[in-house]
Amino acid sequence: MRLADLATPALVVDVDVAQANITTMAELHPGARLRPHVKAHKCTLLARMQRDVGGHRTFTCATPREVVGMAAAGLGDDLLLANETLDDGRLRKMVECGGRVTVAVDSRDTIEAAARAGVGEVLVDVDVGLPRCGCGPEVAGALADRARQAGLVVRGVMGYEGHLQMETDDHVAKVASSMELLQRAALDVGGDVISTGGTGTAVAHAELSVANEVQAGSYVLMDSQYGTRDLPFRQALFVWATVISVSERYAVADCGLKALGMDHGNPTIAGAQVWFCSDEHVTFSGLAGLRPGHRIAVVPAHVDPTVAYHDRMHLVHGPPGADTEVVDTWEVDLRGW
Amino acid sequence: MRLADLATPALVVDVDVAQANITTMAELHPGARLRPHVKAHKCTLLARMQRDVGGHRTFTCATPREVVGMAAAGLGDDLLLANETLDDGRLRKMVECGGRVTVAVDSRDTIEAAARAGVGEVLVDVDVGLPRCGCGPEVAGALADRARQAGLVVRGVMGYEGHLQMETDDHVAKVASSMELLQRAALDVGGDVISTGGTGTAVAHAELSVANEVQAGSYVLMDSQYGTRDLPFRQALFVWATVISVSERYAVADCGLKALGMDHGNPTIAGAQVWFCSDEHVTFSGLAGLRPGHRIAVVPAHVDPTVAYHDRMHLVHGPPGADTEVVDTWEVDLRGW
Repeated sequence: MRLADLATPALVVDVDVAQANITTMAELHPGARLRPHVKAHKCTLLARMQRDVGGHRTFTCATPREVVGMAAAGLGDDLLLANETLDDGRLRKMVECGGRVTVAVDSRDTIEAAARAGVGEVLVDVDVGLPRCGCGPEVAGALADRARQAGLVVRGVMGYEGHLQMETDDHVAKVASSMELLQRAALDVGGDVISTGGTGTAVAHAELSVANEVQAGSYVLMDSQYGTRDLPFRQALFVWATVISVSERYAVADCGLKALGMDHGNPTIAGAQVWFCSDEHVTFSGLAGLRPGHRIAVVPAHVDPTVAYHDRMHLVHGPPGADTEVVDTWEVDLRGW
Repeated sequence: MRLADLATPALVVDVDVAQANITTMAELHPGARLRPHVKAHKCTLLARMQRDVGGHRTFTCATPREVVGMAAAGLGDDLLLANETLDDGRLRKMVECGGRVTVAVDSRDTIEAAARAGVGEVLVDVDVGLPRCGCGPEVAGALADRARQAGLVVRGVMGYEGHLQMETDDHVAKVASSMELLQRAALDVGGDVISTGGTGTAVAHAELSVANEVQAGSYVLMDSQYGTRDLPFRQALFVWATVISVSERYAVADCGLKALGMDHGNPTIAGAQVWFCSDEHVTFSGLAGLRPGHRIAVVPAHVDPTVAYHDRMHLVHGPPGADTEVVDTWEVDLRGW
């Protein structure tokens, strides 16, 4: 099947670029030094590609559903839920999933929930500057003690410096400051894991070598926001769309708010100006000679909430065009919670 | 089951408010004067409530999937795809779905696609000021002629004044100007349908009486953006979430970018200040006494792309609280395209 025959809107992945991105990242952070985050692509076959092409066997998840799905796909060697949960049922499902599962904790309550459900191993999640989950670095040691008293093995610390992923001023110095907090907490906590990072800080972490694992995920597929940073990863993900209406001033394609994560703003279309998106439409101008029925590639501003809208992704070799062959279709099988 | 026992994040609908909203709208636009848009809730059981409580038997859809699903649910008396498509396969599925299906056309290409697939009836979609689909009013008559030559029955016109849904300055006058364009096109096109409108202009249309059917959808569930307008509809939809982390300055709940449409900005939480959302989190402050495990109700800024992330909605009577009983769970069965 050619892309011209694909029902739209539909996710399209340039598998050559995805593989190149995986290879580039594996050179920066080989093997277990990268713990790829699956929340960006939510696809066990892409995770398998990260294992086979990148040599990574440890993975990061954001939801219990991702953990359970990864284990079911045979990718459960070492799964980290880099997120807090107090849901007894879901914690138990992770315990029973057959994989090695480590859960983030940042409070007495999350420790108790983990212990109650029979979780074996935890990381203490430390606030390294992003106002989100994570305990203060100064109490990380006490939480680790409490976790051990509750019968949990404390493997070390994690802390996500999400506020620095798009920061370009004094980037490395700011990441280093953030890592000082994590390193101090790691000394108090014990264990051998210092886990952090994302696509925007992966290069800095290769230089700093404080963390011993980086949780990047977006680098495989990329999005237009990360594309504005000078990162060694290229755009592999597109939403393939059909032009359905053309006027003198603008054109409209069938890729809207229900096919795109919009928190980072409008998507981009090469050579065009995007005016706005509606539920099922993107209005844009600047492409000459368009007719209803023509196909275009839309680049989402934020990969994670875009992929979460779609059932499947279609693989192609090279940049998407009407004549490009679809070589495979993969299920986005880790959606939901 | 109580809401305290519900896995989160999860859609919760106050069914009393939803029914009251349906009743209020049916007083404004009874029977076929409202053609409820199902794109906002994507749920055939809610559409059935619109039929049973509101007395509406004609419906508006944004995608072929919605049309086919509505017909399969026995709600196919008169379905309008208020959107353009050139997808032969999906057009044929609508033709074969067993319902009465009318499709919007705004170009020679969309007319040809409809005729090729065996569509029987169309509306001419007219640009009434929103830069999206719709032909210029001046060519609507010629397009209607062309459609009739292609063997299609032209039932009339539609035109969506989406740019006026949130407009409060000279609201009725601006809607009236927009309707002048549609009325002029209707004279050229013929047929007896003049279809338009949404939740934000439904009151104006009751006053103006130019259109003979209004395509409102959001009014059943509502969102915080429409909530800023002085409309006679109340908030029925919430994303139910669990507090998973609490610090001195803020708290974090498990309702993020993959559970919320974000194009209209951050969600709201009663009594709280929302700081920002991440993929799986909302960070907020201002609620005293929160502990991990507490539950909160998050009000999305935009109903349509929020519902599209969820598999199901949970029905309650009255405002959501931890002890509120879940009286039913309905599938969001019209998702996708």
